[in-house]
Amino acid sequence: MPTVYVTRRVHFNAAHRLHNARRDDDWNRSTFGPCNNPNWHGHNYVLEVTVAGEPDPETGYVIDLGTLRSIVEERIVRHVDHANLNLDVDFLAGILPSSENLVVAFWNRLEGCLPAGHLHSLKLYETERNFAEYRGE
Amino acid sequence: MPTVYVTRRVHFNAAHRLHNARRDDDWNRSTFGPCNNPNWHGHNYVLEVTVAGEPDPETGYVIDLGTLRSIVEERIVRHVDHANLNLDVDFLAGILPSSENLVVAFWNRLEGCLPAGHLHSLKLYETERNFAEYRGE
Amino acid sequence: MPTVYVTRRVHFNAAHRLHNARRDDDWNRSTFGPCNNPNWHGHNYVLEVTVAGEPDPETGYVIDLGTLRSIVEERIVRHVDHANLNLDVDFLAGILPSSENLVVAFWNRLEGCLPAGHLHSLKLYETERNFAEYRGE
Amino acid sequence: MPTVYVTRRVHFNAAHRLHNARRDDDWNRSTFGPCNNPNWHGHNYVLEVTVAGEPDPETGYVIDLGTLRSIVEERIVRHVDHANLNLDVDFLAGILPSSENLVVAFWNRLEGCLPAGHLHSLKLYETERNFAEYRGE
Amino acid sequence: MPTVYVTRRVHFNAAHRLHNARRDDDWNRSTFGPCNNPNWHGHNYVLEVTVAGEPDPETGYVIDLGTLRSIVEERIVRHVDHANLNLDVDFLAGILPSSENLVVAFWNRLEGCLPAGHLHSLKLYETERNFAEYRGE
Amino acid sequence: MPTVYVTRRVHFNAAHRLHNARRDDDWNRSTFGPCNNPNWHGHNYVLEVTVAGEPDPETGYVIDLGTLRSIVEERIVRHVDHANLNLDVDFLAGILPSSENLVVAFWNRLEGCLPAGHLHSLKLYETERNFAEYRGE
Repeated sequence: MPTVYVTRRVHFNAAHRLHNARRDDDWNRSTFGPCNNPNWHGHNYVLEVTVAGEPDPETGYVIDLGTLRSIVEERIVRHVDHANLNLDVDFLAGILPSSENLVVAFWNRLEGCLPAGHLHSLKLYETERNFAEYRGE
Repeated sequence: MPTVYVTRRVHFNAAHRLHNARRDDDWNRSTFGPCNNPNWHGHNYVLEVTVAGEPDPETGYVIDLGTLRSIVEERIVRHVDHANLNLDVDFLAGILPSSENLVVAFWNRLEGCLPAGHLHSLKLYETERNFAEYRGE
Repeated sequence: MPTVYVTRRVHFNAAHRLHNARRDDDWNRSTFGPCNNPNWHGHNYVLEVTVAGEPDPETGYVIDLGTLRSIVEERIVRHVDHANLNLDVDFLAGILPSSENLVVAFWNRLEGCLPAGHLHSLKLYETERNFAEYRGE
Repeated sequence: MPTVYVTRRVHFNAAHRLHNARRDDDWNRSTFGPCNNPNWHGHNYVLEVTVAGEPDPETGYVIDLGTLRSIVEERIVRHVDHANLNLDVDFLAGILPSSENLVVAFWNRLEGCLPAGHLHSLKLYETERNFAEYRGE
Repeated sequence: MPTVYVTRRVHFNAAHRLHNARRDDDWNRSTFGPCNNPNWHGHNYVLEVTVAGEPDPETGYVIDLGTLRSIVEERIVRHVDHANLNLDVDFLAGILPSSENLVVAFWNRLEGCLPAGHLHSLKLYETERNFAEYRGE
Repeated sequence: MPTVYVTRRVHFNAAHRLHNARRDDDWNRSTFGPCNNPNWHGHNYVLEVTVAGEPDPETGYVIDLGTLRSIVEERIVRHVDHANLNLDVDFLAGILPSSENLVVAFWNRLEGCLPAGHLHSLKLYETERNFAEYRGE
């Protein structure tokens, strides 16, 4: 049976700030530059969720992408959309919200929740020009 | 010698319906929702065909992408463009036209037809937000 | 007070066929080519709805784009999404579903329904390369 | 002599909050919903600046788009990029940062600064699906 | 009868150089910077051709966009695609190939060639961030 | 520790010609068609640079994407932007500038220059429809 990779793309808009609370302000400013602005900045994030598996002979689906969308909305998007990623999101508490750390945290929110197939990769676009991917390895 | 992956993107517009003829109408409606509409709906599909191989020292090509385009047009696009994927396409007869099943069927149409390189992956976008990839595994 | 033009983009997927029932099959085939396929084809349509007006001093809005989205969903999208534009849509009965005719019919569905501002233009993308705009003139 | 419209697109990432300080919190929450989050949210804004004029016979330019970019960077982008639009930007003080109000405020920053041609329109994308345009009328 | 604006988008890849042969090399270098490179540079140009008119009651078309595409290919694209805009194109002889001058020259090639509707605007993208529009005024 | 793949996208505009100087003009014309035009043509190239590694616990970064951008600008973009890839670029001397050969040559320019993480892949878009990827294998 063939293995197919299906992807659902979702969107959210959020504020954040790159800041390491264990280091002083000078270190943070010189390390993160304008991304350290104490008054925050923000992005239109795009998240691509890819699930791998064999198409079900009855439905032709690896996973119903409407179901996948609902899971991603419930586990991730409703928590982070129109939110401050440093202040408002329980499952991001204590996590410096770089794209790298976000995509790993999102993986941990989704990994055990799939009714079919298995999570293959998450790709998070902070902008069209900067993005991060995690494959659970 | 390096292995390079070259991709050609093509487009087609088609109607389809998700429907499993071995199951009754209630099952189909509850499984596929609006995608089961008996009067069809449709998409602007985008197909990315990726071929892997070593660049030819004389041409710098893994495969001439104009040649690759012609093969994809001949083997796939001319059959599915402005077509009904459930009714009009010989090589899709009996196949439930989910993106997963389509991309596997397209692989079978292309796999033996490459004059250079080998088929590495097919990625089929049903919309910008939903897509399926197959790598022949 | 300044006049600002605000736009909301929405999407729908539909099947259609270009066919003039008052003309014979030969005329239809030679006029519309593959777009006349009796088994239909389809598109991922994109509709941009632009409303003009003065920003409200209390809200900064010409119109709440969430409200505009709801109106467009109610008046247009829920009727045409995952539908056959020739068969399934009451307000398109008897209308040849070219992009030009669709965009005028959509205008007539929206024009009287805005709580603030006035309808300025509708732009309908059949594909990324083909689109039609109507400004109510 | 022909009139040509030339456009330069620029980008910035910012945090903001829709909030009218003259109204109470209940009104703000019910009017702006999640956009009223006191902890902010943010966007990847795209701004298109269009200048109209006759091409210079010596250069073929209405305006050197490199010069236009520098003006837009100096007058707008360096103030709003990686900033909080409610707190950090002098020329937005007291302005509710809806897309409509932002695009008018940006017009006032640019209008008198062009060495050639005249400002024709500003188009501000908050997301790919929501945008506002102002033409100085 | 309504006036609808229909657009066809086409693509071409070309080399060019911004250089005014009536001025000396110093002036050209300081005016055009890297765009003056004597060894050329190039772009993936995108041209949007917009035609205005009333939809034909028989076809629903302002103009058949397949016909429009053929006209644009014959009058413009086959001359400029994979060409050097300074050296290879008869109808651009003596024209400094800025986007502004190109879009006016393209207008003159198309204006008298439409079987239905009238030419409303041409929009030429040199890059995603720089573009020029001409409306025949 | 997780391995994350971070990508920075950059752009450059260049002229080139596909031509093998060891073969005669007839062979070159029949092999490369319009891409062999002796007067050159050109593209808006897009290059995606992907680096793999573990996020630094202090910064959340695999590599600072601003640093990565500077390295790619210094090692590649400033040499190829607004340049002729056959004539102007030292590190491309003697290389037939197909996308395949370019992406391998760019890899060799970047591979040893990363302060953190390791180079995972380079993806070069010649157009939206044609692209090549190299993973150092």
